[in-house]
Amino acid sequence: MNQLCGTSSIVGCQFTLSPMSERYVDIILFALKEVNMSKVWSETDDVSTCIRGKQIHVFDVVRAIFLHAAKTGEHIAMSGTFSIGCPGDSAADVYMDESDIALNKDDTKEIDQLAGCKFALYPLGREDYMEKIYEQIDWSKETEVNVSHSHYATRLDGKVNDIFNLLQNVFDQTKQDVSHVTMTFTLSANSPTGKAKEVKVS
Amino acid sequence: MNQLCGTSSIVGCQFTLSPMSERYVDIILFALKEVNMSKVWSETDDVSTCIRGKQIHVFDVVRAIFLHAAKTGEHIAMSGTFSIGCPGDSAADVYMDESDIALNKDDTKEIDQLAGCKFALYPLGREDYMEKIYEQIDWSKETEVNVSHSHYATRLDGKVNDIFNLLQNVFDQTKQDVSHVTMTFTLSANSPTGKAKEVKVS
Repeated sequence: MNQLCGTSSIVGCQFTLSPMSERYVDIILFALKEVNMSKVWSETDDVSTCIRGKQIHVFDVVRAIFLHAAKTGEHIAMSGTFSIGCPGDSAADVYMDESDIALNKDDTKEIDQLAGCKFALYPLGREDYMEKIYEQIDWSKETEVNVSHSHYATRLDGKVNDIFNLLQNVFDQTKQDVSHVTMTFTLSANSPTGKAKEVKVS
Repeated sequence: MNQLCGTSSIVGCQFTLSPMSERYVDIILFALKEVNMSKVWSETDDVSTCIRGKQIHVFDVVRAIFLHAAKTGEHIAMSGTFSIGCPGDSAADVYMDESDIALNKDDTKEIDQLAGCKFALYPLGREDYMEKIYEQIDWSKETEVNVSHSHYATRLDGKVNDIFNLLQNVFDQTKQDVSHVTMTFTLSANSPTGKAKEVKVS
């Protein structure tokens, strides 16, 4: 605990990338090599990878890692948690001075990968947290992503780029008046039993 | 929203099991076949599996699925979220009448599998949530599991059975005075870069 809640605007994402393949080490290394991570702090161990920095770059890098792994055609899962305002977070302020130009957007914006996703939003320290959650679910239904209910989560189906745009907006909108927000997500692409739908049906 | 917060004591766990192997379908089916799930509600889709029922059986089943998958020797990751008191949860009350005899304990208690784990506890709707989290981290340090700090999470290293005992106790202790609790976790076993330590060093 180096700081009080909400005193840093640094965003973090701790995630586990799981290619369901004997070549999982190669696929992870390939994805990491394809992604420009020069604007974020990062650390990988045997359980997960942590990316920290400005919100725009954290989402840009996590999206790009997933897309580059998924374009191999293998079944890929990614589970993680985005976080801002954690009282236990320590600063990496040098990364907060970067410009707002996302380094991986040009490489990823044309990748037409479909995925299924389940996410859950946790506005912390607030008695009105359920209102904040429902506001964002309602907003999500206005996007091009297919939104449905799941136990303990909201399910999203669509293009990976649209899903990440939605997740980033939900996170950004919630943090406007909640100082400590976490958001969990699990993405699945190229599943042999995949139900990912491109066309919104409702 | 079928009920108010905290009116059901049903526990749920939504998780994704990821064997890093071409044989991932076989390994998942093998693990599910080995586990007795007759005391829980369950549903699987292309993104995740959801288990719901009494706390003792939900933890028993999730632990057994991970252990049976890991005993294949393949690199296995499991990420998920335990939850209780979710206002959006709908009841499956028939499963709440089961006895407290865990059906998979005899099969799993002797499996000496090591793993690394990162978990995060989210007591929702409470301004004093950080106190609740720190209470449980402090308590965790008194167990046989190696506990260390990680960004946005607490890292656990040790035997899978000890890790699940710890997670279940943390969840159980927190729910005693918080009506809506979620707890995320990622487990990794048989990683080629594994750092799992059996012996507690601090």
